[in-house]
Amino acid sequence: MSGSKCTRLTGALVKPVLDSVDSVLFDCDGVIWRGDQAIPGASQVINLLKESGKKVFFVTNNSTKTRKMYVEKMTTMGLNATEEEVFGTAYCSAMYLKNECKLEGKKVYLIGSNAMKDELQAVGIQQTGVGADHISGKQVDWANVDLDPEVKAVVVGFDEHFSYMKLNRALQYLIRQGCLFVGTNRDTRLPLEGGKAVPGTGCLLQAVETAAQRQAQTVGKPNRYMFDCVASQFGLDPSRCLMVGDRLDTDIMLGSNCGLKTLLTLTGVSTVADTEAHQKSGCTERQGMVPDYYVESIADLLPALQG
Amino acid sequence: MSGSKCTRLTGALVKPVLDSVDSVLFDCDGVIWRGDQAIPGASQVINLLKESGKKVFFVTNNSTKTRKMYVEKMTTMGLNATEEEVFGTAYCSAMYLKNECKLEGKKVYLIGSNAMKDELQAVGIQQTGVGADHISGKQVDWANVDLDPEVKAVVVGFDEHFSYMKLNRALQYLIRQGCLFVGTNRDTRLPLEGGKAVPGTGCLLQAVETAAQRQAQTVGKPNRYMFDCVASQFGLDPSRCLMVGDRLDTDIMLGSNCGLKTLLTLTGVSTVADTEAHQKSGCTERQGMVPDYYVESIADLLPALQG
Repeated sequence: MSGSKCTRLTGALVKPVLDSVDSVLFDCDGVIWRGDQAIPGASQVINLLKESGKKVFFVTNNSTKTRKMYVEKMTTMGLNATEEEVFGTAYCSAMYLKNECKLEGKKVYLIGSNAMKDELQAVGIQQTGVGADHISGKQVDWANVDLDPEVKAVVVGFDEHFSYMKLNRALQYLIRQGCLFVGTNRDTRLPLEGGKAVPGTGCLLQAVETAAQRQAQTVGKPNRYMFDCVASQFGLDPSRCLMVGDRLDTDIMLGSNCGLKTLLTLTGVSTVADTEAHQKSGCTERQGMVPDYYVESIADLLPALQG
Repeated sequence: MSGSKCTRLTGALVKPVLDSVDSVLFDCDGVIWRGDQAIPGASQVINLLKESGKKVFFVTNNSTKTRKMYVEKMTTMGLNATEEEVFGTAYCSAMYLKNECKLEGKKVYLIGSNAMKDELQAVGIQQTGVGADHISGKQVDWANVDLDPEVKAVVVGFDEHFSYMKLNRALQYLIRQGCLFVGTNRDTRLPLEGGKAVPGTGCLLQAVETAAQRQAQTVGKPNRYMFDCVASQFGLDPSRCLMVGDRLDTDIMLGSNCGLKTLLTLTGVSTVADTEAHQKSGCTERQGMVPDYYVESIADLLPALQG
């Protein structure tokens, strides 16, 4: 590889990079854990970063857990985190709907999880839609399905109860005058252990967008709102932040979009070969998916932190 | 408008156009009926075309009815049709899977209707998948959902029972080596009376394509298979066929793709303004959506047929 991008971060290179930042933002799945197992060394890396005075944040596109649920999961795995440090798309979408869409005290139609419902409620936004919604009646009646007149926005996150009727209900809301349209993220698949995967929120969002013939505003990585949400609460200087992730198209792209230093870790989805393909593409957008540095695992940061 | 395209077909212009063709292919909804009501004059137009020795066909992207069901619906509305004249995507997909994919005696995973199941069975193709399929178990188990080892293709048509679990099951089949992927059509909405609409098969197909990260082969308009299916059975000469439809992006595009004469009727989705926008675009693909002729209603053909 040519140029200064995508340097392997190892040996004497690690300390100056860590010294150059005040805050480290970690993606979660594939970075500090996989499934229900912490990545070996993740606990010490997090603790040593905090002991050295750095702020640590956990930034995930997964919308199925509240901040509280993430802290419980991390505690079970021996990872040290507080609710204030966790920025999942359930929480960030609630913040977006409250602060950017001014929907406090209002109601949304939610294709999503109970966790999203809880985070919305916590900022004073009511929802309708969580849970099963099976088809009933005849086709001619579907366009006249009951709608809640108070609904001001359609919000799409991960929803295992996604159904034709939910898709239809979203369409009927979205063709009403002034209805906002927000998605948590566009990840096409949720990777599971052993190279397996299940459909991600991006599939559901794409179905709703196709029906509505309009694009949703998304909150999650690589959209900069995700970083802005952290930065505004903690007064972060982007140039003094390191974004650590396993996906080039979300994590590294977010870092590039926001002017952060970027570090790819190879314990998840993306590979060095993926990075090289982006570098060689000559495409400006794809250059944003080339990280500054990469490590085999975040455990590679340990020697410099312990030294 | 300039050029010879999109001429209003009226008065003395009608007879020479009808004389120049041996076969007339009608789209159905928005052309010869709307909802459960025949378009006024449609019955006479069909009868007079047949009496004058022309072949008449009914070509629809709607996959929710068998040929038999279409004939029953048309008979109820006083429209004269035989099963051999009806080419819906339930039937055409079955023909495609049998003749092009060589799946006779094999099995497919079907996201679709009982009508599709029946048309598949009629050509010796078994299916699994029709009906409700709600979510169960934990996320970690979804990637290990029971799959039928005999399934050779995933087929996506209109399915009011579409669900996250169906989407997931389709993904798990599609990541298997050699699994074919066929969609009935890409219509994004099904138009209903009063300007209302519900989500179309295109939304479901887009969700599955996004999860699978691959494109389906589609059978319906504007793909030429739909015309080839009719033409191969009846030995049609494309230059002696007239395609009559209400949608520029499916009906008229099919006609352009296959070298047919094309007639837009304004009793359905598309307008003359839509046509003019395509004409003015300077985009080659969009020129294919400009019809040769248009009428307010197919009843405008009556005087020439009666004369």
